[in-house]
Amino acid sequence: MKACLFDVFGTVVDWRTSVSRELAGFARQKGLAGIDWLEFAVEWRKLYQPSMEEVRSGRRAWTILDVLHRESLDALVRRYGIRGLSEAEFDHLNRAWHRLDPWPDVVPGLERLKKKLVIAPCSNGNIALMVNMAKRAGLPWDCVLGAETARAYKPLPEAYLAACRHLGLRPAEVMMVAAHNGDLKAAKAQGLATAFVPRPAEHGPGQRTDLAADPGCVDVAARDFVDLAARLGC
Amino acid sequence: MKACLFDVFGTVVDWRTSVSRELAGFARQKGLAGIDWLEFAVEWRKLYQPSMEEVRSGRRAWTILDVLHRESLDALVRRYGIRGLSEAEFDHLNRAWHRLDPWPDVVPGLERLKKKLVIAPCSNGNIALMVNMAKRAGLPWDCVLGAETARAYKPLPEAYLAACRHLGLRPAEVMMVAAHNGDLKAAKAQGLATAFVPRPAEHGPGQRTDLAADPGCVDVAARDFVDLAARLGC
Repeated sequence: MKACLFDVFGTVVDWRTSVSRELAGFARQKGLAGIDWLEFAVEWRKLYQPSMEEVRSGRRAWTILDVLHRESLDALVRRYGIRGLSEAEFDHLNRAWHRLDPWPDVVPGLERLKKKLVIAPCSNGNIALMVNMAKRAGLPWDCVLGAETARAYKPLPEAYLAACRHLGLRPAEVMMVAAHNGDLKAAKAQGLATAFVPRPAEHGPGQRTDLAADPGCVDVAARDFVDLAARLGC
Repeated sequence: MKACLFDVFGTVVDWRTSVSRELAGFARQKGLAGIDWLEFAVEWRKLYQPSMEEVRSGRRAWTILDVLHRESLDALVRRYGIRGLSEAEFDHLNRAWHRLDPWPDVVPGLERLKKKLVIAPCSNGNIALMVNMAKRAGLPWDCVLGAETARAYKPLPEAYLAACRHLGLRPAEVMMVAAHNGDLKAAKAQGLATAFVPRPAEHGPGQRTDLAADPGCVDVAARDFVDLAARLGC
């Protein structure tokens, strides 16, 4: 194993808590009342897969996630009847996805993994989003890979294969790490090794999906990133 | 200013000394005698621009630098009459370009710049080359940009513009740093800010080119990376 690639939203960062906190903080400053920002964050996330599917299917030309997020935000702002936002405020809200907090094991785990392996995100987030998030959260990536460098959204094969190619490695030399079995199944199908890390609070209390590794597609089931580092001898 | 992009070969690393050291070390182990490895390194570098020009001109499809370096190495090995190299040895020699040492001011300068700015290479080297070099040399890049992410070799405009776009920044928010006035002239033409750092030993004793900044295209003339950090308030 020469490199670990990481899913980011949910696996590295707690998007649900972070986005709703960012939105609620803005609303307090702006004097916007009466909106459930946790629900708003979840609704925003629900538009994530359908927006990428337009690009994956080829119906839409390559478009980065910041743009898709912004279109989804525009639609939700209309749906919730929020008025009077300036372009700068829209942009600030859209960049809530650049200001997500990592789970507590992430930075210590990555620091250990980085000593022996190349570590990089392989996320559907665009490069600027990943760079800004990493600077704020202290994520010590060796480089930023993912949808924008591949010009393909996961789980399309090219998203995984381009990341391996860009590192000059064979898929078997690369491990995909995610809290989502679907992501790992797609990576496994391209010949990558896989590690599952459970994030049972990603979707809040009552989460039913991805509570455990699917043995059909997971090589290493780790407790968290620190445990993963230990299992990989880092 | 939000980000600094860096030329790498010559500006960040001393390719001439490092490549010849790598070649000479291999030759000692292999028992190859009678070759001037400093000259060999310089000859290898002379094939760099012509090999990229095939791609820039559109005569050849996009090809990463590791492949161009390898073709040049194959040609030189034949020219020098070196025989009996295995595929693994060719690959090891080709990756001499992944094992280049930084100038002494580089790591302390980058560490300071990174605290306030996004720092990334904008080199004609491919991603794997930049990642392997950074891991070995301790270059703390925030991400790896350059020819492979742009699919264009400097000094084509797209090489600079793609790097800015990938960071979500306007060219005026980005500073290109190089020891080569030609690189800075091309960046300036696309609206980037520019900084010159002299590397008077890049080409060895007797260097005549790029000894000083060209005031026509240089915004900041710094002594070295630490001086650059100070001038940018880092």
